[in-house]
Amino acid sequence: MVSQQGIRLLGSHSLNCLSLNKKNMSLLTVGSVAFDAIETPFGKTDKIVGGAGTYISLASSFFVERQKIISVVGSDFPSAVISEMNSRGIDTDGLQVKDGEKTFFWSGKYHNDMNSRDTLITELNVLEHFDPVVPDSYQSSRYIMLGNLSPQVQSSVIERMNQRPELIAMDTMNFWMDIAMDDLKKTISLVDVLIVNDEEARQLTEEYALVTAAKKILKMGPTYVIIKKGEHGALLFSEDKMFFAPALPLAEVFDPTGAGDTFAGGFMGYIASTLDHSFENLKRAVIYGSAMASFCVEKFGTERLLEVTQEDIAQRVAAFNDLSSFDLNN
Amino acid sequence: MVSQQGIRLLGSHSLNCLSLNKKNMSLLTVGSVAFDAIETPFGKTDKIVGGAGTYISLASSFFVERQKIISVVGSDFPSAVISEMNSRGIDTDGLQVKDGEKTFFWSGKYHNDMNSRDTLITELNVLEHFDPVVPDSYQSSRYIMLGNLSPQVQSSVIERMNQRPELIAMDTMNFWMDIAMDDLKKTISLVDVLIVNDEEARQLTEEYALVTAAKKILKMGPTYVIIKKGEHGALLFSEDKMFFAPALPLAEVFDPTGAGDTFAGGFMGYIASTLDHSFENLKRAVIYGSAMASFCVEKFGTERLLEVTQEDIAQRVAAFNDLSSFDLNN
Repeated sequence: MVSQQGIRLLGSHSLNCLSLNKKNMSLLTVGSVAFDAIETPFGKTDKIVGGAGTYISLASSFFVERQKIISVVGSDFPSAVISEMNSRGIDTDGLQVKDGEKTFFWSGKYHNDMNSRDTLITELNVLEHFDPVVPDSYQSSRYIMLGNLSPQVQSSVIERMNQRPELIAMDTMNFWMDIAMDDLKKTISLVDVLIVNDEEARQLTEEYALVTAAKKILKMGPTYVIIKKGEHGALLFSEDKMFFAPALPLAEVFDPTGAGDTFAGGFMGYIASTLDHSFENLKRAVIYGSAMASFCVEKFGTERLLEVTQEDIAQRVAAFNDLSSFDLNN
Repeated sequence: MVSQQGIRLLGSHSLNCLSLNKKNMSLLTVGSVAFDAIETPFGKTDKIVGGAGTYISLASSFFVERQKIISVVGSDFPSAVISEMNSRGIDTDGLQVKDGEKTFFWSGKYHNDMNSRDTLITELNVLEHFDPVVPDSYQSSRYIMLGNLSPQVQSSVIERMNQRPELIAMDTMNFWMDIAMDDLKKTISLVDVLIVNDEEARQLTEEYALVTAAKKILKMGPTYVIIKKGEHGALLFSEDKMFFAPALPLAEVFDPTGAGDTFAGGFMGYIASTLDHSFENLKRAVIYGSAMASFCVEKFGTERLLEVTQEDIAQRVAAFNDLSSFDLNN
């Protein structure tokens, strides 16, 4: 059942434009399109469609009418899902389908506290020799969201753009810090926004205090750094400013898979739809990203995201506003 | 040296009234006045003056000109400290000095992450048979802050008030949940605001999700519950509202001792100075409490709190505002 839900993940949910002004600005996502098998204290799934690129582009599709994706799948990947990505405005010219090869597969099991997980299976498959191709039609992209992938793949996409995009954001993971720190730092030096979680920020900088870690990351090249703290919210830093967005306290976190990618998709989708890179607008983008992530964890995989409407998003963002706003003047 | 600083903790720092309108509203604090010896990764102290009652009344002294304290010390407690409490507007008629007995002493060592600590020594001394006396002059108190003490001592103070105060807040600890849960729940049923940390909320309710834990606590009697998450901020709940206050991300947490008590002191001091129990005002009170706590951790014991000025507080509260405010309308 869940597997079926996964396979039709990018289903017939039509685009709603109730409250957000969705622009046709060229957002390019680079990230895995994959199969996941997930076990949480609430249950487990068979193979469902997942991957950073899937979550990012799905989340950003609520903000931009058209976008592009660079990724790779095997011939075992259902073409219906690709068609349905297209129907959500996701251009898949840069999604390579490798004949006779298998799609990347990850399987993991979350611990009871939902804050940590064990990886049970990682089958790189098509990702092992992934050489990203940037189609000509992608060259006009103004925004790039680099999902978690090897830093070499991430930087090769940047190098293959004829013009530097206006804003490049990247996500990464401690895995690359363990095995490819030099390459990772080189890629970080090329981007405008680094998105990491608290433990990754600490490992990257060898600093425990997040304020100090953020300062060090900004010295590595990015103009902004976002440090995600899971259920404890997210911090946005520039050289001289700091913003904190809470996570919405939820009665139930069902499955955290993809929450970070969904955050990134909401964040970059919002920026691409507003064409505004000011700190004030990045604050709003962090709130929209947090709102999208708060939906993601409510059901397995992409299931909840697929049900979300623009009205849901508007209400959720208003809930974030209620949660953290106060007026010092009584 | 540090010991000396401790002994003169309530020193000659004069009251400033730059920005806060400090009212002469009768706030009564019940809590230990004690000696602490603290070890953190940054250093260690000899015996310095500490205790929940000390931190609470010190923090609230920035908001109210006059207040009262109920506590007990031994004859080893320096009378100069009591005089200096008086000079800060703290009425010590309810502070019993037990001849020939020793003051409560606690010694603890913080782990490297500063989020957990081991208790090395607990000498209850005068606290063992503490029977709180409410002087007649205290009967008019409109606000009570019950610092962490046995739930029987906390409830006996409430019972000994001729009139029920307008707002009673209480702090407690997992220790009382381990050994006196029934008494604790009885006391909780008598108060308006319960202030606990996340782990305490979970233990008290046997619920992991803080939203669910808060709902259960509200069913136990209080109108409001505050769940402190240390470096991750604090949540305020009423039956139908929720507010999140971030903690200020600090480059260095020097000594967390007393931070929770200082939060409570700032919170109740602010409420007592504004005479306003609305949810909107409680939100502000949480921000002021968080601001006071953010000073507390910057040095050992009460050292940093003693240097703080009203201008520092105003600036810190503005920093909280900058940290968490955003405008959804661009």
